[in-house]
Amino acid sequence: MTIELSCPVPISNHETVQMAHGAGGRLSQDLMRRIFMPHLHNIFLDLLDDQAKLELPHGRVAFTTDTYVVSPIFFPGGTIGELAVNGTVNDLAAGGAIPKYLSAGFVLEEGFSLPELDRVVASMAGAARKAGVQIVTGDTKVVEKGQCDKVFINTSGIGVVREGVAVSCRNLQPGDAVILSGNVGDHGMAIMTSREGLSFQSRISSDCAALNGMIADVLDAVPSIHAMRDPTRGGVAATLNELALASSVGIAIDEAAIPVRPDVRGACELLGIDPMHVANEGKLVVVVQASEAEKVLEAMHSSEHGRDAVRIGSVVRDHPGMVIMRTVFGTRRIVDLPLGEQLPRIC
Amino acid sequence: MTIELSCPVPISNHETVQMAHGAGGRLSQDLMRRIFMPHLHNIFLDLLDDQAKLELPHGRVAFTTDTYVVSPIFFPGGTIGELAVNGTVNDLAAGGAIPKYLSAGFVLEEGFSLPELDRVVASMAGAARKAGVQIVTGDTKVVEKGQCDKVFINTSGIGVVREGVAVSCRNLQPGDAVILSGNVGDHGMAIMTSREGLSFQSRISSDCAALNGMIADVLDAVPSIHAMRDPTRGGVAATLNELALASSVGIAIDEAAIPVRPDVRGACELLGIDPMHVANEGKLVVVVQASEAEKVLEAMHSSEHGRDAVRIGSVVRDHPGMVIMRTVFGTRRIVDLPLGEQLPRIC
Ligand SMILES: Nc1ncnc2c1ncn2[C@@H]1O[C@H](COP(=O)(O)OP(=O)(O)OP(=O)(O)O)[C@@H](O)[C@H]1O
Ligand SMILES: Nc1ncnc2c1ncn2[C@@H]1O[C@H](COP(=O)(O)OP(=O)(O)OP(=O)(O)O)[C@@H](O)[C@H]1O
Ligand SMILES: [Mg+2]
Ligand SMILES: [Mg+2]
Ligand SMILES: [Mg+2]
Ligand SMILES: [Mg+2]
Ligand SMILES: [Mg+2]
Ligand SMILES: [Mg+2]
Repeated sequence: MTIELSCPVPISNHETVQMAHGAGGRLSQDLMRRIFMPHLHNIFLDLLDDQAKLELPHGRVAFTTDTYVVSPIFFPGGTIGELAVNGTVNDLAAGGAIPKYLSAGFVLEEGFSLPELDRVVASMAGAARKAGVQIVTGDTKVVEKGQCDKVFINTSGIGVVREGVAVSCRNLQPGDAVILSGNVGDHGMAIMTSREGLSFQSRISSDCAALNGMIADVLDAVPSIHAMRDPTRGGVAATLNELALASSVGIAIDEAAIPVRPDVRGACELLGIDPMHVANEGKLVVVVQASEAEKVLEAMHSSEHGRDAVRIGSVVRDHPGMVIMRTVFGTRRIVDLPLGEQLPRIC
Repeated sequence: MTIELSCPVPISNHETVQMAHGAGGRLSQDLMRRIFMPHLHNIFLDLLDDQAKLELPHGRVAFTTDTYVVSPIFFPGGTIGELAVNGTVNDLAAGGAIPKYLSAGFVLEEGFSLPELDRVVASMAGAARKAGVQIVTGDTKVVEKGQCDKVFINTSGIGVVREGVAVSCRNLQPGDAVILSGNVGDHGMAIMTSREGLSFQSRISSDCAALNGMIADVLDAVPSIHAMRDPTRGGVAATLNELALASSVGIAIDEAAIPVRPDVRGACELLGIDPMHVANEGKLVVVVQASEAEKVLEAMHSSEHGRDAVRIGSVVRDHPGMVIMRTVFGTRRIVDLPLGEQLPRIC
């Protein structure tokens, strides 16, 4: 059989996403070769199989997922790509697992800038390296112009649950200390103030960061931690309410103890938003037996991401399922879940 | 401390997705309770932790991801939800793994009908039950009206690699038989013909199905299978090209052997599309030592999804990296990757 081989067709150097980049044909392969593989490549991804085959150390496996639709995709302190890596790393780590492998599913808008996509993917790769995880499998879909906003990214993550650690939102005990790793509201207010039409004196920067290093230090110091959670959407208020509800206990916190940067507080006041309701992307709430609280704080303080860690309150037997704050005026008020939507597209 | 408890606020019965359904507050919880949990609940999801903790039998773990953006979301033969479950199940099974656990990440458009979302989630739950997998963790984001199209769903999946099975797209050997489990092009043409403005005499139905049962039967019969792949985007043409390229072999196929339903062939002709380029969602390409081909076909024929399985060609030493078809006219032509985008939003 003789076949005339045509020269390999040179793929035109598109500057923007084309519908065909999502069609599974030549332009799909071109996008993989030009943008995804150069940044993300590793021994698993390079095989380009329909699935990655992983060796996991023996133990229970933790599995989590989040889709990121943040707008704008570049903001002070981070990008949608870094957020997508760090958010999923944090959900694994907060569950007492060692984050190992991530998937990355992209939805791209036709016409989206390829140089901007390159920046997003580069920042993902950097975040993954920093967090010590590998992106081992991916997917790329393209939708028509106007059918999504630039780029949405889903990351799902696999980790190995640490032996001897059994954190759970159902473990809170009256008397436990409630610890917060730092200032609240930075991420949400960085997004808000970076959107058009809003400008503040100072540039508020997102706290977007991977917390698995700090969490490992905390668990090494105190393996008996009762509960951990990263207070993302809904802010610290939502996290405390979820914990109180799941454990059927009350939580009493002290407004004066809650660290809020002055510029974040100012922005929140201007917008009429409670900083306790604002999303964070590099913060941790830890609940631990009171006698171990100092050790947890010590471990946090020696980490880059826990320098401002502080005890903000206690678990109480009263008002089960509710969070009550002693205000700076000495009154008490219920810290409720945010009811409406103040901050769309924050993560 | 005395606290006045207000009655729990009744959440208004929205008929459409609100921005606040994605804010992590009360309406988010309401959506979980009203739609996601009733359909999807299981012992893992019910815990509502930031991550699911899974016991996996010892062995290598397979991990895959896909985002589904198909339009329309309800089509003859399936829904976006069934597609999202079956597609990810098939990517795991085609890698020789037993699919176990799925994640589900939703992006919802503000204003999307909640009864339609309920139908989508119900169909996902049904597909998961049928395939024997559990959806163990999820995420829900909402974007403003016009910033996505109704609903996009990412599913990532975890499976356990079967002992003694080592399928890989790099394993093809000259002389191997190339087997296809049934008719090509049904899914893509079902989507096309269900879109506005296109109508054909008969209603073409998607082949959307979970293949893990059939694949288990095939691997039980012939554990030494060289390669398996589900020919989704880019169709059978893209899959064969990927296999030929990865193994540096040629593939020779016989047009007369390739099963295409007459109505699908008619639709393809009308639209000027090669059925080999059209996506399938319930088909499998298997490459196996020629002496085992009959056993594979037998196993497929006794399965609901492989009744029309047929050998379509062979792996050859000639023209490495290329797929050549002997046409019904006796000529030979290159079966290339689709270059452009003929069928947007097909999966
Ligand atoms: N954005 C991405 N980043 C990293 N890897 C990717 C990306 N998109 C695709 N891949 C990798 O490319 C290969 C082919 O992916 P593709 O999505 O085409 O396969 P598939 O899921 O089997 O097909 P389909 O998506 O049509 O169901 C896989 O190995 C996948 O991990
Ligand atoms: N659509 C869904 N289907 C099934 N479970 C879901 C869905 N959406 C969320 N969940 C579950 O609800 C719980 C809370 O999810 P949520 O996304 O609010 O947590 P998170 O990922 O920690 O927060 P964020 O998304 O703000 O980072 C988790 O247990 C998650 O698995
Ligand atoms: Mg999260
Ligand atoms: Mg979380
Ligand atoms: Mg894919
Ligand atoms: Mg797939
Ligand atoms: Mg596949
Ligand atoms: Mg989430």
